[in-house]
Amino acid sequence: MSQPTPTYRPPNFAGIRTFMRLPHKTDLAGVDIAIVGVPFDTGVTHRVGGRFGPEAIRSYSMLLRGHNSVLNVSVFEYCSAIDYGDLDVTPGYLHESHRQIEQGASKLFANNVTPIFLGGDHSISLPLLRAATAKYGSLALVHFDSHNDLGHGSYGDKDSHGTPFRRAVEENLLNLDHSIQIGLRGSNHRADDIQISRDLMDVITGVELHEMGMPAAIERIQARVGNKLAYLTFDIDFVDPAFAPGTGTPEVGGFTSAQTLQLLRGLQGLNFVGFDCVEVIPVYDPTTVTCLLAANIVFEFMSLIALQRKNNQTQPIQR
Amino acid sequence: MSQPTPTYRPPNFAGIRTFMRLPHKTDLAGVDIAIVGVPFDTGVTHRVGGRFGPEAIRSYSMLLRGHNSVLNVSVFEYCSAIDYGDLDVTPGYLHESHRQIEQGASKLFANNVTPIFLGGDHSISLPLLRAATAKYGSLALVHFDSHNDLGHGSYGDKDSHGTPFRRAVEENLLNLDHSIQIGLRGSNHRADDIQISRDLMDVITGVELHEMGMPAAIERIQARVGNKLAYLTFDIDFVDPAFAPGTGTPEVGGFTSAQTLQLLRGLQGLNFVGFDCVEVIPVYDPTTVTCLLAANIVFEFMSLIALQRKNNQTQPIQR
Amino acid sequence: MSQPTPTYRPPNFAGIRTFMRLPHKTDLAGVDIAIVGVPFDTGVTHRVGGRFGPEAIRSYSMLLRGHNSVLNVSVFEYCSAIDYGDLDVTPGYLHESHRQIEQGASKLFANNVTPIFLGGDHSISLPLLRAATAKYGSLALVHFDSHNDLGHGSYGDKDSHGTPFRRAVEENLLNLDHSIQIGLRGSNHRADDIQISRDLMDVITGVELHEMGMPAAIERIQARVGNKLAYLTFDIDFVDPAFAPGTGTPEVGGFTSAQTLQLLRGLQGLNFVGFDCVEVIPVYDPTTVTCLLAANIVFEFMSLIALQRKNNQTQPIQR
Amino acid sequence: MSQPTPTYRPPNFAGIRTFMRLPHKTDLAGVDIAIVGVPFDTGVTHRVGGRFGPEAIRSYSMLLRGHNSVLNVSVFEYCSAIDYGDLDVTPGYLHESHRQIEQGASKLFANNVTPIFLGGDHSISLPLLRAATAKYGSLALVHFDSHNDLGHGSYGDKDSHGTPFRRAVEENLLNLDHSIQIGLRGSNHRADDIQISRDLMDVITGVELHEMGMPAAIERIQARVGNKLAYLTFDIDFVDPAFAPGTGTPEVGGFTSAQTLQLLRGLQGLNFVGFDCVEVIPVYDPTTVTCLLAANIVFEFMSLIALQRKNNQTQPIQR
Amino acid sequence: MSQPTPTYRPPNFAGIRTFMRLPHKTDLAGVDIAIVGVPFDTGVTHRVGGRFGPEAIRSYSMLLRGHNSVLNVSVFEYCSAIDYGDLDVTPGYLHESHRQIEQGASKLFANNVTPIFLGGDHSISLPLLRAATAKYGSLALVHFDSHNDLGHGSYGDKDSHGTPFRRAVEENLLNLDHSIQIGLRGSNHRADDIQISRDLMDVITGVELHEMGMPAAIERIQARVGNKLAYLTFDIDFVDPAFAPGTGTPEVGGFTSAQTLQLLRGLQGLNFVGFDCVEVIPVYDPTTVTCLLAANIVFEFMSLIALQRKNNQTQPIQR
Amino acid sequence: MSQPTPTYRPPNFAGIRTFMRLPHKTDLAGVDIAIVGVPFDTGVTHRVGGRFGPEAIRSYSMLLRGHNSVLNVSVFEYCSAIDYGDLDVTPGYLHESHRQIEQGASKLFANNVTPIFLGGDHSISLPLLRAATAKYGSLALVHFDSHNDLGHGSYGDKDSHGTPFRRAVEENLLNLDHSIQIGLRGSNHRADDIQISRDLMDVITGVELHEMGMPAAIERIQARVGNKLAYLTFDIDFVDPAFAPGTGTPEVGGFTSAQTLQLLRGLQGLNFVGFDCVEVIPVYDPTTVTCLLAANIVFEFMSLIALQRKNNQTQPIQR
Repeated sequence: MSQPTPTYRPPNFAGIRTFMRLPHKTDLAGVDIAIVGVPFDTGVTHRVGGRFGPEAIRSYSMLLRGHNSVLNVSVFEYCSAIDYGDLDVTPGYLHESHRQIEQGASKLFANNVTPIFLGGDHSISLPLLRAATAKYGSLALVHFDSHNDLGHGSYGDKDSHGTPFRRAVEENLLNLDHSIQIGLRGSNHRADDIQISRDLMDVITGVELHEMGMPAAIERIQARVGNKLAYLTFDIDFVDPAFAPGTGTPEVGGFTSAQTLQLLRGLQGLNFVGFDCVEVIPVYDPTTVTCLLAANIVFEFMSLIALQRKNNQTQPIQR
Repeated sequence: MSQPTPTYRPPNFAGIRTFMRLPHKTDLAGVDIAIVGVPFDTGVTHRVGGRFGPEAIRSYSMLLRGHNSVLNVSVFEYCSAIDYGDLDVTPGYLHESHRQIEQGASKLFANNVTPIFLGGDHSISLPLLRAATAKYGSLALVHFDSHNDLGHGSYGDKDSHGTPFRRAVEENLLNLDHSIQIGLRGSNHRADDIQISRDLMDVITGVELHEMGMPAAIERIQARVGNKLAYLTFDIDFVDPAFAPGTGTPEVGGFTSAQTLQLLRGLQGLNFVGFDCVEVIPVYDPTTVTCLLAANIVFEFMSLIALQRKNNQTQPIQR
Repeated sequence: MSQPTPTYRPPNFAGIRTFMRLPHKTDLAGVDIAIVGVPFDTGVTHRVGGRFGPEAIRSYSMLLRGHNSVLNVSVFEYCSAIDYGDLDVTPGYLHESHRQIEQGASKLFANNVTPIFLGGDHSISLPLLRAATAKYGSLALVHFDSHNDLGHGSYGDKDSHGTPFRRAVEENLLNLDHSIQIGLRGSNHRADDIQISRDLMDVITGVELHEMGMPAAIERIQARVGNKLAYLTFDIDFVDPAFAPGTGTPEVGGFTSAQTLQLLRGLQGLNFVGFDCVEVIPVYDPTTVTCLLAANIVFEFMSLIALQRKNNQTQPIQR
Repeated sequence: MSQPTPTYRPPNFAGIRTFMRLPHKTDLAGVDIAIVGVPFDTGVTHRVGGRFGPEAIRSYSMLLRGHNSVLNVSVFEYCSAIDYGDLDVTPGYLHESHRQIEQGASKLFANNVTPIFLGGDHSISLPLLRAATAKYGSLALVHFDSHNDLGHGSYGDKDSHGTPFRRAVEENLLNLDHSIQIGLRGSNHRADDIQISRDLMDVITGVELHEMGMPAAIERIQARVGNKLAYLTFDIDFVDPAFAPGTGTPEVGGFTSAQTLQLLRGLQGLNFVGFDCVEVIPVYDPTTVTCLLAANIVFEFMSLIALQRKNNQTQPIQR
Repeated sequence: MSQPTPTYRPPNFAGIRTFMRLPHKTDLAGVDIAIVGVPFDTGVTHRVGGRFGPEAIRSYSMLLRGHNSVLNVSVFEYCSAIDYGDLDVTPGYLHESHRQIEQGASKLFANNVTPIFLGGDHSISLPLLRAATAKYGSLALVHFDSHNDLGHGSYGDKDSHGTPFRRAVEENLLNLDHSIQIGLRGSNHRADDIQISRDLMDVITGVELHEMGMPAAIERIQARVGNKLAYLTFDIDFVDPAFAPGTGTPEVGGFTSAQTLQLLRGLQGLNFVGFDCVEVIPVYDPTTVTCLLAANIVFEFMSLIALQRKNNQTQPIQR
Repeated sequence: MSQPTPTYRPPNFAGIRTFMRLPHKTDLAGVDIAIVGVPFDTGVTHRVGGRFGPEAIRSYSMLLRGHNSVLNVSVFEYCSAIDYGDLDVTPGYLHESHRQIEQGASKLFANNVTPIFLGGDHSISLPLLRAATAKYGSLALVHFDSHNDLGHGSYGDKDSHGTPFRRAVEENLLNLDHSIQIGLRGSNHRADDIQISRDLMDVITGVELHEMGMPAAIERIQARVGNKLAYLTFDIDFVDPAFAPGTGTPEVGGFTSAQTLQLLRGLQGLNFVGFDCVEVIPVYDPTTVTCLLAANIVFEFMSLIALQRKNNQTQPIQR
C-alpha cells in the first residue's frame, strides 16, 4: 500500500516535496486517494499566481501528521494514497487547458480513485466536474466561496474563474436540488447576484453563516446533500483574508480557520467523489498562513475519505 | 451624474487609480459623495507612513463593486460620487497642514457634499471637525479606536495623533452628550485614561464590546447618537492587528473584519455629515489585508449615505 | 526602585532596546520581576530562528504602557522590574546550552525574583523548570500550546522542543495533579497522542476550548492549579497563525489574541513562580503581529505578578 | 501645453497617481509624448503579475523630476506630455487582447504622438509593433533583453511572451538590417538559440556586453540603427535581478542600473517612434527597486524624445 | 577602557542591542568614540521611517568584528568606545528637535569625543554641524549623497531633509573651500541644480564618479580637504538602491558597497571631528542589506578614527 | 540515460520539484551527476534556516534550461543526471548529522558519481570532504567564501560552520599545496585571521580580487590547482548581499553574479570530484535572487562536468 514517509525519518523538511511525503506515482492501481496539482491561473480576473499553488501547498503539507484526532481516524490506516503530480496545462490558453485538465482528471475518476485537486484558479472546477460527471453523472455541489462564480461571462462573454458553475449548470453537471453554496459575501456587481444563486440551489450567505453558526450550517448542508454523490469545491477566499491573505479576490468579513475546520469535519458521512481546493496564490502569502491552511484543508478532505472507509468497515491497512 | 467606470470594461486593474474608478473631479456641483485623501502623517508618535494611505486604499478599492447586498442598496443608484483627489499638506509641519486641511475640507462641506476622508494619521480629524462644524455646528462623534486620542499633549505639550479630540473638546466642536467612543483597549499610560473618556462621553471599551456583542453595541450607539448630526471617525487600529496589521500603534485583542462590518452596517439611519478612515500605513501591510479592509469600510460609509437617500425617497439615478 | 523610562520622554522609539525601556541590570537586589532572554533555537524540528525572539519582543514592547486597565493594576506601582539581558547559550549544542540556561536561571530564582523568560524554542522550558524546582520543589504546570511536547524523543531518541515535559515528568519536576495543558490541536503522529497527555494531567484540547469558551476554561484551570506553586509556559503557537504567524510549527484552528488575553487575565490569584513565552520567530513575522502579541503576553504576566502583590497589601512604590 | 504638476505643490506623494503627475487625458491634440499602460500578462510562461506593472511604475514615478542633467535637457520644456491611462485588454485571452492593444496603440501613432508603453508582458510588443508599422512601415528594433523572444511557439505552437519577435519577423514588421538585440544571456533551450538571433540581426550577448563595455556597445547600436526609424523595447530582465528582481524570468549575470542608464543615454540621436518597458511584476519587487528603475528608464525615454526636439531647434515651451 | 563584549561569548545575537555590543554609557570621560542615535525623520519629503534607523543599524552591527584588515587596524586597540544611546527628539516638530539634537550633540563635542551619529533623516546634519562648529569652527564637509541638499526650502520655504547644507552655508558652518559633494545624480528639479553645488564647493557627480573611478576620486577628496578639520556626512542613498533599498528617496544608477568601502578607506589621514550616516529606513529594507551596509560604514568610520590614533603613535590599549 | 523533463511540456512550473525536473532516483548505476540536498543548519552562528535551502534551490532551478552557451555545452548531451533527494540528518545534533552526511555522501563517491551538494550550512563540507577523500585521497580545495572557516572552535571549542576547514586540515583531507581561498573579506575577529589562511594555502582576498580582476584570478586558481583532484566549495556569501541577501553571515563589498559566473566558467579543465553550494537561507531571500543564483551556480557546476566529458571525447548521449 502507498504510504507516506514517516514524519521524522528523515526530518520532515528533508527530501523532494510531495504532499505529506507521499510517494509520487502515476500508477493508480490500488490507490484510494490521489493528490493532484492543477497549476493553472489564466482564468483569474484580478491578482494572479495560482500556478504556484500546488508547489506551496505541498511544501506546507510537511507540517501534517497522519492522525486526525477530532475525527478519530488515522488516514493511512484506511487509505492508500499517492501524490500524482500535476496535470498538464497550457498557460495563457483557457480552453485548451480545460481540455487537458478534463482529460487528465478523467483517468483518476475512471480508476475509482478519489482525487483531491490543488488549484489553480476556480475555472478548473469546470473541467474537473466534467470529468467527474462522466464517471458518476450529475453531482451535488458543496461549494465554499465568497463568490457564487455563476457569471455568464467576464469582459463580455469570456470564460473565467467567475463562470465555472454557470457552465456546469448549462451542461447539467450539477444535481442542483442537492447543491449548496456557503459563504457568499462582499460587494456585488448587481442587486440580484445572490438571488441568482438562490434560484438555482440552496445558499448560506456569509452574513447568514455568521448568524446561524457552524453547527446549524452543518445540519443544513447534510440535509441538503443527503446521500447523493457529491463534489466539494473549496475556494480559499471563503476564509477571511486575515486567515488566508494569499488569494486573488479576497473578501473581508469572512471565517476563521477554526470555523472552517469545524464545518469540514461536520461533512462526515457525505458521499464525496472528488474535492478541490483552489485560488491559493503563494506570492500574496508572506505569512504562509494561507498555504498552511490549504494543506490542512486537504488533510480534512483525506480524513473524510478515510473516515468513510473506516465507517464502512474497511479493514485497516497492515503495516 | 458622476458614476464609476463599470467593473469589467476595462478590467478592474486597468487605468488610473481613483477610488472605485470614480471620475477624478474637483467640481462639486451635483456631487453627493466625495472621496478625499489626506496624506498627512507628521502627527504620529510611533510607526509612520500614513501619507501613502490614500494611494493604497484607492488601489485596493479596485476589488469593490457597487451593490451592498446586506444593506440592500446600490450605491450609485442613489448617489453621485467622485474622487476629489488629495488635500494639500505640508509634511513635517502639523499646524500649517492642519490649516490647509481645514481649508480644503471646508469647500466640500460648503457644497453640501458628504465627504469621506482617507487618512493619514488621526490628527487630521481635528481640522476636519473644524471644517465640518463651521458648516453644521457641534457634532455627535462616533469614534472607533483602540485609543481615546484625548491626550493633552505628547512630548510635553505637543499636538499629535493622540490629541485631536482633546482639542475638539476644548474648541466645543463635539456634541458630547451624543458622542461615543468604541473599542478602547491596550495598556494605558495612566490609571485614569479610560475614566477621562467616560467623564466626557459614552464609552464602550474593547473588553466591554467583546462581552456585550455587536447587536447590543449597535443599539447603544444608535440610542446615544439619536437624530443628531454626527461625524464618524474610524481609526483602523480598532480592528485587531491580525485583520489590520498596517497601522502605527496596533493593539492586540481587537475585533474581526466581520464584526467591524456588522457594527458599521448597524449605524444605518444616523445622520452623518462626514466620515474618515485613518491610520492605514501600507508599508506595514505586506498581506494587503489592511488596505483592503479600509476600502471596504469606505464602501460601507458610502452605503450608509446611499441608504439614507434611498430611505428618504430619493429617486434612483437614471442611467 | 527599578522603573522604566517614561513612555514619551524621549519618544518610545528612541534609545537602547530593553523590555519596556526597563533598566538593563544584572544586580538582583530588590528586584521583583526580571525579563530574561533565552536566545536558543537548536531544539526545533521545523522552522528555525527563535534566537532572535528576545530582540524582537523587546523591540515591540516599546508600544506598551504601564497600566493594565482590565486587571486594574499599574505594574510599576507594585513591582520593581529590570531587563536582565539574555542568558548565555551555545548555539548548536542543546545539552550544553541547557546547562547554561539552568545555571543562569538559578540565580534569578535564588534571589526571589519572579523571572519572565523570552524564548527561544520550547526545549528551554526544561532547564528553566529544573532551575525553578531546585528552589521551589515540583511545580504545577500551566501549559498553553497546540502540541503536548511530551515526546519521548525526536529522530529516534533525541531531546528537542517536542520533549521538554516528558523529561520534566521523568525528573519529577511537575506537580502533575495540579498541572494542565490547554489548546492541543492539529494532526497527530499517533492516535494516542492526546491520551498520553490525559494520562498524566488535565487537558483542554483546542476543540474543547472552542466549545467550552474562555470563562469555563478559566474556572477549570483555577480549580486544577488551586493554591499550588505554579509555572506558566506559553508556546505562541497556542494562538492561531492568523494572529501569530511568526512561529515554527504553526497549527491552524487556534485562538484569537482577544481570547488569549482573556484567558491569561483569568489566571489572577494563582501562585506563579515563573513564566516563559516561547517559539516566537521574528523572520516569519512580516506583519509583526506575533512579536507585538508576545510583548503583550509578557505584559499580562507582569500584571499578574503586580496584581498578586497589590492584593497582598504590598505598599505602592513611591516615586 | 500639457505639463506635470510641480514636484512639491502639493507634495509628490499626494494626488491621483499618473506618471510624474502628468494630466490624465485621452485627447491627443498637441501631445508629443503619451505614457500608456498595457496591463496584460497572459503571455507569460513562468511568474505572472505584470498586469499591475503600469500602476506600480506610475507610483514610483513620483520620485522623478523634470530635468535630465546628464543629457542636459528639461523634458517638459520641449515636450507636451500626458498620461493616457491604460489600453483595454481581456485577461486570459491573448489574441483578443492583442487586437485591443493594436487598436488602442494605433490611435496614438496616428496622431503623431510618441508613445511610451508600460507593460505588461513582452507579448504586447507584437501588437504595438503592428500598430507602429501601420503608420511608419518596418522599423529598426533596438531590443534590450536577456532572452531573444524569437521562439516559434511555447507549449507546442502557442504565442507567448517568448514569441513576439518571431511573429514580427514573419510579418515583416522589422527592418532587420538595422535591428539589434542586446544582453542575451542565461541557459538556453537549444544550442542554436543565439545563432537564431544572429542569423536575423545584430546581437550583443550579455557576456559580450560585459567584455566590450558600454561605450563600445553604444557605438555599435548607433552604427547599426543609423538614421532609420526605430522602436525601442526594453525587457526589464536585461538588468541583473539584484537591480530588478521584480520580473518573471530573471537571469543572473546581468547589468547594473548605472550601466543601463549609460546605454540608454547613449542612444541619443536615434529616430525612435515608440518605446516600451515590459515585464515589471510588482509583487516580486519587495524592495521596490525594479519599479523605481522602470520609472527612471521611462524618464530616459522621455529625455531622448525631448533632446531630439531640442536638437531639432524646437522652441522651448513657454510657461 | 570601554570595550565591546567579545564576539562569541555569549553568541553575538544574545543580549541587549548596543552598537557592536559596546557598553551603553553616557559618561564621556576617557571616551574616544561614541555611537549616537538620532531617531528623527520629520524632515523627509517622501518615504518616512528613519526613526527606526538607529535600532536597525545597532541590530545588524552584531555581525561586525573589531579588526579592519584592509586598513590594518584593530579599532578597540586604539580607541575607547561607547554606545551613547539616542538623543532626545520631538517627532513632528523639526525646529524643536533640531534644538534638542544640537544641545545633545554639543556635550559630545565638548568632551573631545569623536561622535558617529546614526540617523534619522538628513535634516539632522544641520544641528549636528551647529554643535560641531561651536567647538571647532567652520568645517570642511565631505558629503556623500545623490542629492545636494542645498534647497532653499521645500513646500515653499520650509526646512526639510533637502535643505540642511543651504542653512549650513547661510550660517557659515562650512569651510567651503575645502568641502566637496560626491555622488550627485538622478533627475533634477531645475536645470541649475548641480551648478548651484559647483558654485559653492567641489563636486563629483555620480556620472563623473563612475567615469573617473574610485582611486582618482579619493585623490580629489584628499586634495580638497587637505589637513582641515572636517565632517563626514553619508546619505545612504549615495549607494545604489540594489545595495541599499532601505531609504526614502532612492536614486538608481549609483554605487556598489565595494566601491563605497573603497572610497571611505581612501579617506584615511583626514581630520574628521564627526561623522553621520543618515536616511536608513528599515521598513523599506526587507533584504536587510541596507542596515548591514550602514553598520559596516559606521565600522569604517571607527576604523578611520582608530587608524588616525595609531598613526599618531597612540599607545595601544592594554587589555 | 537519466534526463530532465523537457522545459515546456508540461510548463516548467508544473510537477514535483526536483532539480531541473531531473528524475528523482537513488539508483546510481550509470549516473554521472547527482544533485544531493543536505538540509542541515545546526552549525550556524548567526542567522539560521539553511535546512530549507535545498527545497528553494530546486524550486528556482525551474528557470534553467540545458544548454550553456558561454561554455558551449549541452549538459544532458554528455551527462546522465539525477536528483538524489536529500541526505538524512538529525537537526540539532551536529556530530551525529555529520556522521549521517559522511555515510550518505560516501555512497555517491563510491559509485563514481560526481555529486553536487546543496546546503545547508558550511559545516557540511567537513563530512563531505571526509567522504570524498575516502575515495580519492586528499583534495585540492577551491573555496569561494568571504570567511576562511578555519576557526579552531566557536564558543570556546565547538565545531560550527566556522571550523570545517580547520578540521579538514587537521585530518589531512586537503592537498594544501594546491588549495586556494577566494573572496575573504569583512571585519575580522583577530588581526591575523587572513594570515592564518595564507600560512596554509593560497589566498585571494576580496579586496585583492576586486583589484586583480576575474581573468587574473582565474589564471591564479588554474595555476594553483593544476591537474590535481579537486573539490569546489561555494559559500553563497562570497557574492555581495545585494546579489545574494539570503544567507546567514553576509558581508558587504562582495562580487556580482556576473563576476561569479565568469569565475566559475574560468575553472573549466580542473579535475573536480565534487561540489557544494552552501549557506543559502530562503527565508532571508524575499527577492528570491539568492536562490535563483544558487541554482545557476549549480548549473555552472554541471556544465563544468559536462564540458570535461565533452572535451574528453565522451560520445554524446543519444536521445
